[in-house]
Amino acid sequence: MMKNIRTDLAIEAKEIYQKENNGSYPGVEVDEYTEEDIKITNVRIIDQVGEKAMGKPKGSYITVEMPEFAHYDSDAMDDVSEVLAKVLTPLIKLEDNMTALVVGLGNSSVTPDALGPEVISRLMVTRHLKELVPNSIDEGIRPVCAISPGVLGTTGIETGEIIRGVVEKIKPNLVICIDALASRKMERVNRTIQIGDTGISPGSGVGNKRMELSERTLGIPVIAIGVPTVVDAATLANDTIDLVLDEMIQQAKNGGEFYNMLKSIDKNEKQKMIHEVLNPYIGNLMVTPKEVDAVIESLSKIIANGINIALQPALGLEDINRYIN
Amino acid sequence: MMKNIRTDLAIEAKEIYQKENNGSYPGVEVDEYTEEDIKITNVRIIDQVGEKAMGKPKGSYITVEMPEFAHYDSDAMDDVSEVLAKVLTPLIKLEDNMTALVVGLGNSSVTPDALGPEVISRLMVTRHLKELVPNSIDEGIRPVCAISPGVLGTTGIETGEIIRGVVEKIKPNLVICIDALASRKMERVNRTIQIGDTGISPGSGVGNKRMELSERTLGIPVIAIGVPTVVDAATLANDTIDLVLDEMIQQAKNGGEFYNMLKSIDKNEKQKMIHEVLNPYIGNLMVTPKEVDAVIESLSKIIANGINIALQPALGLEDINRYIN
Amino acid sequence: MMKNIRTDLAIEAKEIYQKENNGSYPGVEVDEYTEEDIKITNVRIIDQVGEKAMGKPKGSYITVEMPEFAHYDSDAMDDVSEVLAKVLTPLIKLEDNMTALVVGLGNSSVTPDALGPEVISRLMVTRHLKELVPNSIDEGIRPVCAISPGVLGTTGIETGEIIRGVVEKIKPNLVICIDALASRKMERVNRTIQIGDTGISPGSGVGNKRMELSERTLGIPVIAIGVPTVVDAATLANDTIDLVLDEMIQQAKNGGEFYNMLKSIDKNEKQKMIHEVLNPYIGNLMVTPKEVDAVIESLSKIIANGINIALQPALGLEDINRYIN
Amino acid sequence: MMKNIRTDLAIEAKEIYQKENNGSYPGVEVDEYTEEDIKITNVRIIDQVGEKAMGKPKGSYITVEMPEFAHYDSDAMDDVSEVLAKVLTPLIKLEDNMTALVVGLGNSSVTPDALGPEVISRLMVTRHLKELVPNSIDEGIRPVCAISPGVLGTTGIETGEIIRGVVEKIKPNLVICIDALASRKMERVNRTIQIGDTGISPGSGVGNKRMELSERTLGIPVIAIGVPTVVDAATLANDTIDLVLDEMIQQAKNGGEFYNMLKSIDKNEKQKMIHEVLNPYIGNLMVTPKEVDAVIESLSKIIANGINIALQPALGLEDINRYIN
Repeated sequence: MMKNIRTDLAIEAKEIYQKENNGSYPGVEVDEYTEEDIKITNVRIIDQVGEKAMGKPKGSYITVEMPEFAHYDSDAMDDVSEVLAKVLTPLIKLEDNMTALVVGLGNSSVTPDALGPEVISRLMVTRHLKELVPNSIDEGIRPVCAISPGVLGTTGIETGEIIRGVVEKIKPNLVICIDALASRKMERVNRTIQIGDTGISPGSGVGNKRMELSERTLGIPVIAIGVPTVVDAATLANDTIDLVLDEMIQQAKNGGEFYNMLKSIDKNEKQKMIHEVLNPYIGNLMVTPKEVDAVIESLSKIIANGINIALQPALGLEDINRYIN
Repeated sequence: MMKNIRTDLAIEAKEIYQKENNGSYPGVEVDEYTEEDIKITNVRIIDQVGEKAMGKPKGSYITVEMPEFAHYDSDAMDDVSEVLAKVLTPLIKLEDNMTALVVGLGNSSVTPDALGPEVISRLMVTRHLKELVPNSIDEGIRPVCAISPGVLGTTGIETGEIIRGVVEKIKPNLVICIDALASRKMERVNRTIQIGDTGISPGSGVGNKRMELSERTLGIPVIAIGVPTVVDAATLANDTIDLVLDEMIQQAKNGGEFYNMLKSIDKNEKQKMIHEVLNPYIGNLMVTPKEVDAVIESLSKIIANGINIALQPALGLEDINRYIN
Repeated sequence: MMKNIRTDLAIEAKEIYQKENNGSYPGVEVDEYTEEDIKITNVRIIDQVGEKAMGKPKGSYITVEMPEFAHYDSDAMDDVSEVLAKVLTPLIKLEDNMTALVVGLGNSSVTPDALGPEVISRLMVTRHLKELVPNSIDEGIRPVCAISPGVLGTTGIETGEIIRGVVEKIKPNLVICIDALASRKMERVNRTIQIGDTGISPGSGVGNKRMELSERTLGIPVIAIGVPTVVDAATLANDTIDLVLDEMIQQAKNGGEFYNMLKSIDKNEKQKMIHEVLNPYIGNLMVTPKEVDAVIESLSKIIANGINIALQPALGLEDINRYIN
Repeated sequence: MMKNIRTDLAIEAKEIYQKENNGSYPGVEVDEYTEEDIKITNVRIIDQVGEKAMGKPKGSYITVEMPEFAHYDSDAMDDVSEVLAKVLTPLIKLEDNMTALVVGLGNSSVTPDALGPEVISRLMVTRHLKELVPNSIDEGIRPVCAISPGVLGTTGIETGEIIRGVVEKIKPNLVICIDALASRKMERVNRTIQIGDTGISPGSGVGNKRMELSERTLGIPVIAIGVPTVVDAATLANDTIDLVLDEMIQQAKNGGEFYNMLKSIDKNEKQKMIHEVLNPYIGNLMVTPKEVDAVIESLSKIIANGINIALQPALGLEDINRYIN
């Protein structure tokens, strides 16, 4: 029944689940707390009931919600990086000398999809130094490597194939993936970071399970970091129509034919209709904020530094910044 | 009565006018013809009736509709440039030695708004050579200069002030403005070029008449070239709702209460409601195709070359390309 | 005799002057001090002797030398901005409600020349708000506007003409220009900020005095901020040859024919020879560090914030960052 | 004896070899011919004498020299692509249904090193369609896939490891690599395309043989396409000094002490001295033409289309352009 929740964010799936299930959400546990003005929500799917209702595998989905000004204030950016590192640290179960591979998913030439590759370009990469010039680098520094594999449409190769080929060659102990997501709500765009421990399906929704990046397919733990950077045009249209219908319902006389008609509109039918109407353009359209270039840049710095701090517990942010130089 | 047509394109305004006026459109004349698979439509507003109905001043608004593949086929791109030049030529009433100033409106750091500045960067600019090293350049070459004045939000100066300041200093005989527009229809985006002889209001719709660039304010003829590169998010939502409502009306029993209710929905009210719903984001949202970077690049080449050919009748496209080097 | 010093930096001109004048430098006064690890040098040309020897007009040329890591450490970047603001403040003799126009010189599509336009894109611009929506903005905020006029080669208009046209229209009380310079020394590139109160000649060295931006040509004070972002290829070759010749001289037997020959090489002749050798490419070549994109970005933030702080004494850096949002 | 030739271009190595070997070049064969104003030179190293003298393995090194205006004239660009395809075709010994993997070497965020990744972004990629939606695509179309693996400094992984991992997973029948090279001569920069059938060592000169991409390491044929896009700063300085010294020798009295001294300068010593002088900056400096962004864009189109035509003999350039859309 709950089969139609289509959102990349567990926090949104839970809201819809809760709404459609009269306020409760069996199979799911939720914790909320705040650090440095940053709201953190941990949505845990604990059993098959939760899995089915949420459309996502069992596991933790932690959401970090940034204050709006974080994109423009370097201290606030650092605060978010530190909170992100705190959330990541317990998920990284590595000994000091174990290697992490960071994967930047997405298309570097479509700005809102370029988050992954942009994070890669700001990462503290050390594996080659550990291997080639070990004396040049402190012992406490963990070997980290990184790759931006591109997208199926421009490489002709499934991302999963590239990553598995690389993983088999270099044998890392952990994979961290970064991807741009779609949100249902404009106010979440570029403001919410989701961290999960159940892997990721690049270009998800396509239903191509071979592409999944997860412990099941790679044989090592996979942490996924995602940020919604676009709103789907059909979602935007749909949500607007819902709001307009709600407004019409409120204004219609309770119990009248019109009221009843409005109440009876089948939400799935309506959504299908919108998809048909927008269909000729849908794959090609995106809705973004105008300042998307600047925002992706600051987001990628925040996330890169969160990963850098979490992977290099022996270093402070200042050392890391100096090192990246 | 026709007061609510909000579109930058005369061809769209005429369609709405015609629809709401039972098929006729007094005060407006329309010619259509085809050159090299390219459809050209000349919408002429001929009197005050037309002006009022269309929400635009008297004059010619010529639309060039490109075939879809033009963005990817260099021969097709050249064909569009040649057709654009043919349309522009009769509007350019200059003697050979008269100077043209080309103005690239828009914000170079927001890709779909960067069309104007991108055209400027591909223009054949000659005025400085004519003035500083006249012997380096053929006599038949017209002096052309160009400027991208930026946008009010990043300069703090109205574009009209900058252009008037420059026009007073360098005294050109003609201004050609290029601007990115909004369309009501996704299928027109990046495919339609509108050429007008009545000037332009940068950031139009804001109602700030002081900013108008026209013969009235600059004292010299102003040709405007515009291409819709985005669809307004509210327009997209509105049009989708209209289509959905039409679908609902068709399915409702003719004459029933629901049918009548739907028929009675006030289109202005509905539009206002959508604007309220989207308001917190509206100024900031844009709907674009994903490959917007590549498309703006090819569009700017097409338009720059159309202008180059029209302004330099003594040269062929090959000479111009070699020259731009 | 000192006529051949070709460098945009007064600090370099003074070094050469001092070297060629046996250690003294009549007509020039120099102060050095340090703030937050940042070295500040004030070179004042006080009379005609200094003007002639230095090849620059009378006035103050203050040099701020950044530590190397400043490009990568956001706290260090803020420190440099604060020091830059301290240096600028006494040069800005404006009442609170007087308007400043900031001019970003250079070509935005050639990375090392894009410093000026990049600064403009990060500036706190307020003039339009003061004029159009005065209630939206605190009274203590000074009206600031900005323009990136482009370069002669792409506009066909001398930069001076554009700026004079704009100045006459909007009547600011002060102009601040930012420009990318050439240095003689690789180690100064992207590390040294020069602030002067005597105006600027865009594309200087070309000898076109009409283009000068100064109090003399604009009628209002002009502050120039410049950073060397390239080394001239001929300069690099010349300096390398000098070092090689010095090495050869040291190794040659003092007093021998070879030694005397080497000593007798006419430096001007040699420089001319190098220019001839490199001539076919010289206008077109530039020598830059590989990470030039990242460095220009951080430099433009440092300078934009220095100007923001200096022009808005009522605000702190945090307010400014929030405002720019 | 010939051990010191350091250039990526076989045509330059042969020139130096010939000069230092009194005009002959044993072990090397050279053919020259012209197609559509484009000069093609085939340098074949045929034995160990040639290998040792040239510092390159046995095999063919074909050089295509573009006319200068090719970067600005779309017909001339197409001509170069066609010639490149003609040169490539005999090297591609594939049956129709065999898969080619194209590898874009280099750093996409350093413009002159971004040639490889830029070519990848303009390639006709078909492998995923052949596999996932075979009916969507003509039978005569060959499966092509592509990857931009990044550089060691930003991935921490040797390029060879990534490519071998991918090759083992997807098992192509041919690899084509594209890389940006360094030239000794400014006039070759961005004008010369070298095609070789002996593989490539990414970041060559570093002496890390594990990184080699060749039939020996990958088990399938490897074609290398390289274009010099920079001049090494030390090379530029060195060549300038040589020219200046030659000039000095010509002016010195034949037989005098100075003349003899100049003649006796040890070229290797001098080169070492220059490297020492430039050493603090050398790794970090590059010498490029100013319009490097525009040139890399047109180069990448030329090369991508040359590869597209060669890999898809069933299609014309027009079909390919339409397809890439």
